[in-house]
Amino acid sequence: MREFPDEAERVAGVPDLLGMLAYATLTAFFRLAGDAARATALSDKVALAAMAVNEHDHFRQFLGRLAELGADPGAAMQPYVQAIDEFHARTEPSDWLEGLVKAYLGNEMAASFYRQAADVLDPGTRELVDRALSDAGHADFIVAHVRDAIESEPQVTGRLALWARRILGEALSQAQRVAAERRQLARLLAGDDVGHLATINQMLARLADDYSRKAAALGLSSRAAGQEERR
Amino acid sequence: MREFPDEAERVAGVPDLLGMLAYATLTAFFRLAGDAARATALSDKVALAAMAVNEHDHFRQFLGRLAELGADPGAAMQPYVQAIDEFHARTEPSDWLEGLVKAYLGNEMAASFYRQAADVLDPGTRELVDRALSDAGHADFIVAHVRDAIESEPQVTGRLALWARRILGEALSQAQRVAAERRQLARLLAGDDVGHLATINQMLARLADDYSRKAAALGLSSRAAGQEERR
Repeated sequence: MREFPDEAERVAGVPDLLGMLAYATLTAFFRLAGDAARATALSDKVALAAMAVNEHDHFRQFLGRLAELGADPGAAMQPYVQAIDEFHARTEPSDWLEGLVKAYLGNEMAASFYRQAADVLDPGTRELVDRALSDAGHADFIVAHVRDAIESEPQVTGRLALWARRILGEALSQAQRVAAERRQLARLLAGDDVGHLATINQMLARLADDYSRKAAALGLSSRAAGQEERR
Repeated sequence: MREFPDEAERVAGVPDLLGMLAYATLTAFFRLAGDAARATALSDKVALAAMAVNEHDHFRQFLGRLAELGADPGAAMQPYVQAIDEFHARTEPSDWLEGLVKAYLGNEMAASFYRQAADVLDPGTRELVDRALSDAGHADFIVAHVRDAIESEPQVTGRLALWARRILGEALSQAQRVAAERRQLARLLAGDDVGHLATINQMLARLADDYSRKAAALGLSSRAAGQEERR
């Protein structure tokens, strides 16, 4: 069992968490808007643009909550700019399909992370994050598109399955870096001081498990990735 | 004086006009989101992302009006996809500043075009387009940034002034192409059949005049462009 931080520490950590989520949703907005611009079919452009705007809506809510808590939104986001930008730079999709897989798994990772973090948040923040991460509309559109692509061209499966593992690997390495650098956030999430890196690692391991299940839901199991690696 | 089309023709032309405005605002959304993603300062990212979402808001309203009129949004936009995409492909900004100039002038061109077209629209559509194009928040941010850039680095003026003229030139050539291809839209705007290309050309000439004034407001007069050309 982890020990929860006391009230003062909790309050100190919340803007940290909100800053991370805010910058993550802002960049998710940029990525989805870019995917929408690159889509060939007009109907896909319209659907992805709506998803992008949806992310921006969450971004705006995180910013609003930061302001309510008396935190400066720019200062709260700034510590995460480098890690999140680097994650995106290292997982630049080479085509539209890779962009869709990344959008879906990125959202699922954020939701899984949050499910583990929710119990340390104050109720107001928790409700907000809950709403932001429970959007299902997103997922349905993407799952349908990726499954269609796999069905009509089965040889893409291995490539996309490897791609999904690469995204996870890059996300985990940036997350460990953030956990090491942002002690206040790590303490909010992990409780006690001595064991916090171990606890964070357990969180990340659970996140990786969730991720594998979600990748499998897209038709991208680790078995599919393994088949690609043996070629 | 142009003769106004009768009611039946007007109704036939309005979805055409809305389809054009809808696709234009959708691509403006993509462009601004891309500019926001490329901005270096976090505060610029946030400001440009909000402008992008604002364009998407207008896009959604145009789509809603099309649905109210019983028109299929995709079918209404499709005829403009090629011309508008080509306009963007031929005016790909080479840096952030060119992107800002393009965003500002594109919006001003749309507003000028609309001021000339407004009197043929039904009141419901007119009010909607009015609201969409009267946003001033946009302009202030961009004018301030471009003026700052010119002040701190006067040698960019000539390049940006030429850039502004190139944007106008490409817009005019795509507009003439659309006017020739979309007879229903041209008739809505220009009234009688025989003289409609001449009337459209007059509209475009007025648009070019408005444009020059707006470019001058950015500090990019045709004199500045001429100085660059003589180098």
